[in-house]
Amino acid sequence: MKKSDIVNLLLQEKESSLPSREKSMAFAPSNIALCKYWGKRDSELNLPMTSSLSVALPDKGAMTTLIVQDASSDTITVNNQQISEDSKFAKRTIEYLDLFRPQKNWHLNIEIKSDVPIAAGLASSACGFASLVSALNELFDWKLTHRQLSILARLGSGSAARSLWNGFVEWHAGMQPDGMDSFAEPLDVEWQSLCMGLLLVSEAEKPVSSREAMQCTVDSSIFYSLWPKKVNQDLALIKQALKTHNFSLLGGAAESNALAMHATMMSAWPPICYYLPETIAAMQKVWQMRKNGVEVYFTQDAGPNLKLIFLSDHKAIVKEQFPEMETVRLFD
Amino acid sequence: MKKSDIVNLLLQEKESSLPSREKSMAFAPSNIALCKYWGKRDSELNLPMTSSLSVALPDKGAMTTLIVQDASSDTITVNNQQISEDSKFAKRTIEYLDLFRPQKNWHLNIEIKSDVPIAAGLASSACGFASLVSALNELFDWKLTHRQLSILARLGSGSAARSLWNGFVEWHAGMQPDGMDSFAEPLDVEWQSLCMGLLLVSEAEKPVSSREAMQCTVDSSIFYSLWPKKVNQDLALIKQALKTHNFSLLGGAAESNALAMHATMMSAWPPICYYLPETIAAMQKVWQMRKNGVEVYFTQDAGPNLKLIFLSDHKAIVKEQFPEMETVRLFD
Repeated sequence: MKKSDIVNLLLQEKESSLPSREKSMAFAPSNIALCKYWGKRDSELNLPMTSSLSVALPDKGAMTTLIVQDASSDTITVNNQQISEDSKFAKRTIEYLDLFRPQKNWHLNIEIKSDVPIAAGLASSACGFASLVSALNELFDWKLTHRQLSILARLGSGSAARSLWNGFVEWHAGMQPDGMDSFAEPLDVEWQSLCMGLLLVSEAEKPVSSREAMQCTVDSSIFYSLWPKKVNQDLALIKQALKTHNFSLLGGAAESNALAMHATMMSAWPPICYYLPETIAAMQKVWQMRKNGVEVYFTQDAGPNLKLIFLSDHKAIVKEQFPEMETVRLFD
Repeated sequence: MKKSDIVNLLLQEKESSLPSREKSMAFAPSNIALCKYWGKRDSELNLPMTSSLSVALPDKGAMTTLIVQDASSDTITVNNQQISEDSKFAKRTIEYLDLFRPQKNWHLNIEIKSDVPIAAGLASSACGFASLVSALNELFDWKLTHRQLSILARLGSGSAARSLWNGFVEWHAGMQPDGMDSFAEPLDVEWQSLCMGLLLVSEAEKPVSSREAMQCTVDSSIFYSLWPKKVNQDLALIKQALKTHNFSLLGGAAESNALAMHATMMSAWPPICYYLPETIAAMQKVWQMRKNGVEVYFTQDAGPNLKLIFLSDHKAIVKEQFPEMETVRLFD
């Protein structure tokens, strides 16, 4: 099944495929997975092997502005800098827009303002595609539900399915070949005292994209076959922790899940290592703090940066140990 | 079954349990596993879950001198420094000697000269116990075969079973509950152009002993259940590589095996991380060299140090990239 089939399925009842306005804007938050999405069962539709669970960063994300333009091609700017049409990023965006053009020669000026560095393991493509699809929804006045937008966003980038909401979000793996049951949903949980700190070790673009890393891991790591079992265990623990506000349970399961994901990569061939020396130094520091009785955990995505997880009571002491850390808001 | 049962089995036909001389000496080489020993099926007898394969470092090892002494306790010196009876190392050695004392009040002066730092992931306990058991064999004039000494050495430290020979050595996991089929054997392979370089990142004693790390991994890592399968694959590849002197095959399988072992540790809980920032920096450098066409691989034991594997043709270029590396002799 192709992406365009899914788009047709979702948009077939819409009266017109012509945009209802000339300009639209939408913001989508970045999201950090506490239980990771790692591996696809369908790489065309970005259907995941497992469910996953994230928390949104409402102050970090992407704002996408779309303006219909009378031109022979799309124009893309990211943070006021025009992006070359030949770049990976532009190609991926243009290919995605091809799914929605009313006519072949219909083009857009796409302005993206992103609070997160591109392709550095900070979910830039998640919030990017989620804001893009939300802006398209406005532009064409599709009036799609968030659940439907989640499916469309997934076609751009898997984890974008989770970037349609604030708070905790679960992306259901689904089982259908067309992925119509593979969408995200917000969880009815708030946790005011939960804090996250971004530890930027490097903002450089990662040497291996998540997409490639995922595929190489699925294809070559002997441990990958147990990853779905690991996710099932961790997902259950994390949901239980959210229900009961059990921080130790949440932090332990999230950290263990991230470490296991990286373990599958390190055991792939060729090995995929997102650790930088600074990553390991920060991890060792976190473990030392726990030994000293300060409950702080980390998670790590497909990049060298760590996201620290702690409760507001420990904010000062964590900040003291990691002065370079940027604490991000999770809830109001 | 207890260690003393195995000792009785092996020594039952010996005419006398009294030492035939007052003093003996024996050297045993350190060994570096290319396919790792990781996890026990019997922790009393140090029976491994899987077979393993190593190469000896004939110039790095331990020389143990035993002198019968008229005293109320054993005396242990390592590199001319007397070791406190309360230290982990002394306790382990004394407990091992208890297996062989003709009388309870029979004591030894044990002098160990070791070329490798203690408990830094350089197989110090392997060559230590192998040289100790060889020296006991001399002292008591047991005339045991190397295979029998391999079994006795294993009772002291698992990987010591492999330190009775130079060259490539395979330790058969065995299946018997008494471990009489769990011994090592030399492989009839020489590889003059094969080189190993020690990259000492830290000589500090490791924070978690191999013994503890192994147990924690077996008990808590979801991936450990696939480790025996991984070893079977890698062992076959390495033996094929040795037969055909296929260096890429050898290096790739050895590196992948080590990475997978550490992946099982990183996914244990609490996580066990022997990586130091310097370890990761060196690994990244190795991968960069391979990208540039220089075939160099690494292996890593339960410690932060790397052992680089390369062919003599590349010795100069590897040394240029890693000036701090100590190249060790593998063959004459």
